[in-house]
Amino acid sequence: MLKLYDFALSPSPRRVRVFAAEKGIPLALISVNVREMAQFSDSFRAISPNCTVPVLELEDGRRLCDSLAIWRYLEEIHPEPPLLGTDAFDRGIVEEWIRRIELEGYQAVAEALRNGVERFRDRAVPGTVPFAQIPELAVRGRKRTALFMEMLDRRLRDSEFVAGRRFTGADIHALVTIDFAAAACQIAPPDTLAALKTWHAKVSARPSAKA
Amino acid sequence: MLKLYDFALSPSPRRVRVFAAEKGIPLALISVNVREMAQFSDSFRAISPNCTVPVLELEDGRRLCDSLAIWRYLEEIHPEPPLLGTDAFDRGIVEEWIRRIELEGYQAVAEALRNGVERFRDRAVPGTVPFAQIPELAVRGRKRTALFMEMLDRRLRDSEFVAGRRFTGADIHALVTIDFAAAACQIAPPDTLAALKTWHAKVSARPSAKA
Repeated sequence: MLKLYDFALSPSPRRVRVFAAEKGIPLALISVNVREMAQFSDSFRAISPNCTVPVLELEDGRRLCDSLAIWRYLEEIHPEPPLLGTDAFDRGIVEEWIRRIELEGYQAVAEALRNGVERFRDRAVPGTVPFAQIPELAVRGRKRTALFMEMLDRRLRDSEFVAGRRFTGADIHALVTIDFAAAACQIAPPDTLAALKTWHAKVSARPSAKA
Repeated sequence: MLKLYDFALSPSPRRVRVFAAEKGIPLALISVNVREMAQFSDSFRAISPNCTVPVLELEDGRRLCDSLAIWRYLEEIHPEPPLLGTDAFDRGIVEEWIRRIELEGYQAVAEALRNGVERFRDRAVPGTVPFAQIPELAVRGRKRTALFMEMLDRRLRDSEFVAGRRFTGADIHALVTIDFAAAACQIAPPDTLAALKTWHAKVSARPSAKA
């Protein structure tokens, strides 16, 4: 069975758990408690040199150390249902939305969190090199998170799912980002973003969302 | 023929031109002079709501508005030579390196530039919403760019190309990022990073690098 080095409360491993659950791929979960800095242990550093979760480990020992890289691998070994697009143009559109969610949404929330709370002091950037927090970046991250939610709401007024008529990885990335904003930064979509809230209820009700 | 809304001096459109050149895909280039703010014109806003280049336009008028989304499309319509991986695991590895280059390299250079020069005052974040510059982020971006170059040098001591034995999109992303750091921020790899410099000379000598 595929092994996943995981942490239940972190957004990036959740992306992989939900993606695998949609495809029915079982994963053997190994928890790395990043709240207690277990990612910096010598044993985990040997597995993931950048000291981040998730890491997927194949039966032959080869590893992938990034959530979206793991998606790409899982899509290839288990194409059904397709979560990264169905034809050439659709694959482009799904990638475009994944990138917008990453750069306008997920990175904004991560900036707000890492620059805004004591727990991440001197860890404002993921990885092994210490970086001081920049308080202005926390403020900017919160503002960008709100703008991201407005942008996503506009999209979802016209589109059943983020990348079109089908549920895709773009929905998973957006769901995890919205829930991360609430859990880590106490930013929830306001009631005025009705299309976003309807979509969020719908994708949260899928069994995979609990994975 | 496919149309590319392009700007010769910007890094993101160059990523697409080099990728297409490696595959021998001709593109009809339409220049959008972002130095003169042409991306904010009403006519271009109708093409690219986020006011960014590149945009790929298909013969039927459909569009993709992100460089790596365009890569994904081009890889599907013209698989040879493969630039995003050859089998399931290799596709994962190429994605992992593209993500590292994006997040550790390209974003660091872009932060240094957009927060550090007068030309980007109130445009510290790409897109249509004004954001003030954060001078500390320019300093941090320069430091992260230097660390990125060291990381890439360590990788290239052990690997002929960024993602392994073959030239891939990860090499294109890294080449464009290194050249962007030099042109936009006057940050060049020091001579001590010999593996990075050897690789840079090798990939710069490919005909596609001039595209």
